[in-house]
Amino acid sequence: MKNVVVRNVDRPPLDQVDALAEFGVATVHEAMGRRGLMASRLRPIYPRAAAVGTAVTISVAPGDNTMLHVAVELCREGDFLVVSPTSPCEDGYFGDLFGTAFKARGVRGLVIDAGCRDIRALEEMGFPVWSKAVFAQGTVKETLGTINLPMVCAGQLVTPGDAIVADDDGVLVVPQAEIPAALTAAEARAERERINRERFLAGEVGLDVYGMRERLAQKGLVYVDHISELGGDR
Amino acid sequence: MKNVVVRNVDRPPLDQVDALAEFGVATVHEAMGRRGLMASRLRPIYPRAAAVGTAVTISVAPGDNTMLHVAVELCREGDFLVVSPTSPCEDGYFGDLFGTAFKARGVRGLVIDAGCRDIRALEEMGFPVWSKAVFAQGTVKETLGTINLPMVCAGQLVTPGDAIVADDDGVLVVPQAEIPAALTAAEARAERERINRERFLAGEVGLDVYGMRERLAQKGLVYVDHISELGGDR
Amino acid sequence: MKNVVVRNVDRPPLDQVDALAEFGVATVHEAMGRRGLMASRLRPIYPRAAAVGTAVTISVAPGDNTMLHVAVELCREGDFLVVSPTSPCEDGYFGDLFGTAFKARGVRGLVIDAGCRDIRALEEMGFPVWSKAVFAQGTVKETLGTINLPMVCAGQLVTPGDAIVADDDGVLVVPQAEIPAALTAAEARAERERINRERFLAGEVGLDVYGMRERLAQKGLVYVDHISELGGDR
Amino acid sequence: MKNVVVRNVDRPPLDQVDALAEFGVATVHEAMGRRGLMASRLRPIYPRAAAVGTAVTISVAPGDNTMLHVAVELCREGDFLVVSPTSPCEDGYFGDLFGTAFKARGVRGLVIDAGCRDIRALEEMGFPVWSKAVFAQGTVKETLGTINLPMVCAGQLVTPGDAIVADDDGVLVVPQAEIPAALTAAEARAERERINRERFLAGEVGLDVYGMRERLAQKGLVYVDHISELGGDR
Amino acid sequence: MKNVVVRNVDRPPLDQVDALAEFGVATVHEAMGRRGLMASRLRPIYPRAAAVGTAVTISVAPGDNTMLHVAVELCREGDFLVVSPTSPCEDGYFGDLFGTAFKARGVRGLVIDAGCRDIRALEEMGFPVWSKAVFAQGTVKETLGTINLPMVCAGQLVTPGDAIVADDDGVLVVPQAEIPAALTAAEARAERERINRERFLAGEVGLDVYGMRERLAQKGLVYVDHISELGGDR
Amino acid sequence: MKNVVVRNVDRPPLDQVDALAEFGVATVHEAMGRRGLMASRLRPIYPRAAAVGTAVTISVAPGDNTMLHVAVELCREGDFLVVSPTSPCEDGYFGDLFGTAFKARGVRGLVIDAGCRDIRALEEMGFPVWSKAVFAQGTVKETLGTINLPMVCAGQLVTPGDAIVADDDGVLVVPQAEIPAALTAAEARAERERINRERFLAGEVGLDVYGMRERLAQKGLVYVDHISELGGDR
Repeated sequence: MKNVVVRNVDRPPLDQVDALAEFGVATVHEAMGRRGLMASRLRPIYPRAAAVGTAVTISVAPGDNTMLHVAVELCREGDFLVVSPTSPCEDGYFGDLFGTAFKARGVRGLVIDAGCRDIRALEEMGFPVWSKAVFAQGTVKETLGTINLPMVCAGQLVTPGDAIVADDDGVLVVPQAEIPAALTAAEARAERERINRERFLAGEVGLDVYGMRERLAQKGLVYVDHISELGGDR
Repeated sequence: MKNVVVRNVDRPPLDQVDALAEFGVATVHEAMGRRGLMASRLRPIYPRAAAVGTAVTISVAPGDNTMLHVAVELCREGDFLVVSPTSPCEDGYFGDLFGTAFKARGVRGLVIDAGCRDIRALEEMGFPVWSKAVFAQGTVKETLGTINLPMVCAGQLVTPGDAIVADDDGVLVVPQAEIPAALTAAEARAERERINRERFLAGEVGLDVYGMRERLAQKGLVYVDHISELGGDR
Repeated sequence: MKNVVVRNVDRPPLDQVDALAEFGVATVHEAMGRRGLMASRLRPIYPRAAAVGTAVTISVAPGDNTMLHVAVELCREGDFLVVSPTSPCEDGYFGDLFGTAFKARGVRGLVIDAGCRDIRALEEMGFPVWSKAVFAQGTVKETLGTINLPMVCAGQLVTPGDAIVADDDGVLVVPQAEIPAALTAAEARAERERINRERFLAGEVGLDVYGMRERLAQKGLVYVDHISELGGDR
Repeated sequence: MKNVVVRNVDRPPLDQVDALAEFGVATVHEAMGRRGLMASRLRPIYPRAAAVGTAVTISVAPGDNTMLHVAVELCREGDFLVVSPTSPCEDGYFGDLFGTAFKARGVRGLVIDAGCRDIRALEEMGFPVWSKAVFAQGTVKETLGTINLPMVCAGQLVTPGDAIVADDDGVLVVPQAEIPAALTAAEARAERERINRERFLAGEVGLDVYGMRERLAQKGLVYVDHISELGGDR
Repeated sequence: MKNVVVRNVDRPPLDQVDALAEFGVATVHEAMGRRGLMASRLRPIYPRAAAVGTAVTISVAPGDNTMLHVAVELCREGDFLVVSPTSPCEDGYFGDLFGTAFKARGVRGLVIDAGCRDIRALEEMGFPVWSKAVFAQGTVKETLGTINLPMVCAGQLVTPGDAIVADDDGVLVVPQAEIPAALTAAEARAERERINRERFLAGEVGLDVYGMRERLAQKGLVYVDHISELGGDR
Repeated sequence: MKNVVVRNVDRPPLDQVDALAEFGVATVHEAMGRRGLMASRLRPIYPRAAAVGTAVTISVAPGDNTMLHVAVELCREGDFLVVSPTSPCEDGYFGDLFGTAFKARGVRGLVIDAGCRDIRALEEMGFPVWSKAVFAQGTVKETLGTINLPMVCAGQLVTPGDAIVADDDGVLVVPQAEIPAALTAAEARAERERINRERFLAGEVGLDVYGMRERLAQKGLVYVDHISELGGDR
């Protein structure tokens, strides 16, 4: 299955994907039961970057951006590029020309478990990238890969058509079939957080808000007033 | 001594702690004889973050934020949370709800040798965090730890009541008994730096300002006018 | 050859070096045939930092900034400090006093495969630094090194008088003898990129712009319309 | 789907899995088209460790080995444990008591993207482990996970019933449906390698054995007899 | 307190320290309540290294082994060197001459959060070292440090006179006052492990041995016979 | 200068290179004034590996071993391969077939700032490799590089014809012109070390052997008999 490009992806309704943007990575991740988060080595190339979209998956050889060129004409409004090299690499696969080309097709952003360059130009054009390195090292166009096959990126399985949610806190994969449930759960969680924030501002503490006191006592939590009570065998 | 919470800390006068803010991490660190600096993996979650406060120490299990909930009601104006996991972990223990709760109690900031999330919200509310990772990964509430016992965080021993000084250059621990001396030494050093800066601006060089020329010659420093003088055996 | 300081460097014409600034690291790196890029661990201490200059090379002992003091009086307008420790170190060799002293002599910036401190002050005075760490850890003045000998920094050979180009994308070394050719090639590449950007904005894709379609087919690239065509043995 | 344990796995014929042992990781990996290799951070805890078996997948919380206890009674002769924490962790989940228990059930070995301990005892009993760390840090038994669901481990998707091949060169996943084809291809590759080894020993070179000379010339490879021919602009 | 050497240490009875050797790092660490373990980056320089002894603490400047020379004449039979640089460094502070000198005084081994060299000679003479790097890089003798003050090494506080237990699984610090209790607890744990090993060999599983079944059910662990029961929304 | 192969190297007399083997990496490195050591990430693939030889330099693209095939017929008895990728890569460029081919031509070993595989077979045939990773990941044959041009590998400049000394302590480059001086200095140093070892065995300490006492006192080293003398402000 090397060297296969799948032209069409069963994409979810874009309005559903877009609705995830309101909640952000941390809230949707919690709402989904704490699954789907890519490794923390992926960081945005500029502060306040945030985007959601539909995954187009691209598997590339180390130091070779051939398949990014192949991907351009397959993309459409609302897509989100997800690029993973077949072995660890930090070369700068992506720069402002690619940003120009993909942005012109409505692509929302890029997640790449490798390097990115031209980051000032990408910020100026508003094309957000999450990468593991910023590195100007160029790539070649010699070796094939795949597009739109299921693929692991930064520790997570990504299937074409999954939703990608990315912001300052990292990058989250929401499997396509789970998008509606994730939305509902995120709304509920956001509402709970809103209420809890009010309670915290009013001076309540999580021990009471979450009803933790009794369980902590059962587990053996001991309070002392001063460290001197602990004696010499501390 | 697992699972002990010490309610009260012998805190230093807060005005003394606050006075350290004027000098910043690098100057106080030098003034103290170059001790107390936490590892460089701790970075602020937003640029220009700076804070000082009194250490409340929290030892947590990997992936478990129980003790942060316990800590809230023990904190007071001027405190600075110091959190260290019992084994390496980069989970996002702390987010905007905690920021809200601790800020409402006058806590100045957080140092955590693990991960943080909701960094945009924390920046907007002005709650500074120094962490080794930004990672949305959630934590559980199952395993106990300790609060306000001496503890190692990012390579430094922290005792409750020590002063924490944190800015763009990193995080410094000033043992409580050394705060007055550190202040005096920092003032002296800042004054020396002010004078030296004037001399540097006037064109003098450190070799003269610090009287280094003779010692360098004794150690065998050799000047040549041009590399060609070194011959072929370079 | 330890402990040698070479006073004079055969510098290239400064206007040639300055002309590289227009193109930036990624473009000049590509134009030179993808050589000369320092390792990606070197990052600017503040966003949007950019500078070009002539390399003054400084080899230092770990945790010892003696040779930076020695270097000050050897620098002139347009120089760019390149500092490499003889073994891995992340101490903060350089702070605002050095920034003041070197800036007063017209030095453009610093590349250091170690740590930097006082980064807020350095940003405020506009002295850019590319370093592998931000770390307030102080250094001593005990051990000699060399100035203006050829040296490896962050994976690249740097000879005094080479041009250094640094921006958000990293740090590039242009050997002195190659500066004119690099300029010419960078101009040509920038013009090609300008044309290609127009074509991309007009909707063309790289497969056509770079004439890749036939070669990809020869290499065996296979297109399918839908993943279901791949059958169960995917 | 958190907290689900699947009791039964559709396992491949064990003799097929065992047949992969003859070829080893590097040869099977090549034969499969260079897919399926886990990240290089996984290393054997003792030299010359080698094993093949059928994947039992275990997803665990950081610092929590509950699910390993759950897994014991689900294992049978020929199984190979694959353990991945839900966020990065290097705690010592596995020691000699687990080794004793799993070995008694015929389990062949363990791959864990975290830590292992008691490595001397494990070597003595002949229970091989591939881990990212050796670390005595203990774990708790508080948080649930999953067993025998598809899971990502060290960068590769592992489905229960896949074959695991592990030796000094690393760890390879062979999807269950591909085992027969992988065997056939590995046999063919091993035979080719045997022939090529003979030719290399007889003095032939890869340029001829693999017919590379013409293509290299087309790509522009230039030979010179001596470096002096390259002139000053090298 | 820089530059202070404390000549005498209140050492624990050596037979107590020696008695810890029987149990090893993992068992004593568990017996102590999972405290005291140094970071996993410290690894033995040869397989099967194991030693126990009384800590002599040495704080050194990066790249400077002065204080190791100072330490020699302060050591006695049963001591264990613990060396930590004041900032991260991997230079080879220690080689076969030091091994010869310290071994002649009865020193049991070295833990160093930096580099070591001459590892073949050290293995041949039977002087074990746990280090974060093997690196031949030499050090200088210019900058002072401290001996026998409390100090952090690889994440743990070490006080002179503490017991050090080191083997293939890592390095453990046992505070002097806790040695008798640690011994008693380790003996009890080893006996429990012996009994459990028998039960595991007899086919019992941890779920029963540790009485986990009911609690897992309460936490919501779900068993299914086959993955197909989970339906499409997995 | 991309894509150039230099056929002939001015090699030093092989008996001179071979004579370095007696002293090993640490001693020759010290004798040369502590220069030339490659980064500590390069480790031997099996214990007790040791070799010396004449550098043949090979610059390769990431994930591409074309130039290793080209190099075979250029090698001769006593050569030592030095391979560096143009950007960071840990792919397994080299395995047992290459080992067979190069060993048949008298090549002594390989240093590669990337990955190696088939390490058991390489150990069995006695072909030593120093690499930064062991990784079975395969490479392609698409992109050209250079052979026998000066090149940076793991932080050191290597010129074809330099001597390479490698053992358990790492990898050292001895510039060709310095080989005779390095030999002489290594002999002298080895003799001094032999004498010092005798003195250490006889109970002398480095403070006296190296005459350090007076200088340490001048630098301010303070001895106290017991830590209690330091008072509360420690």
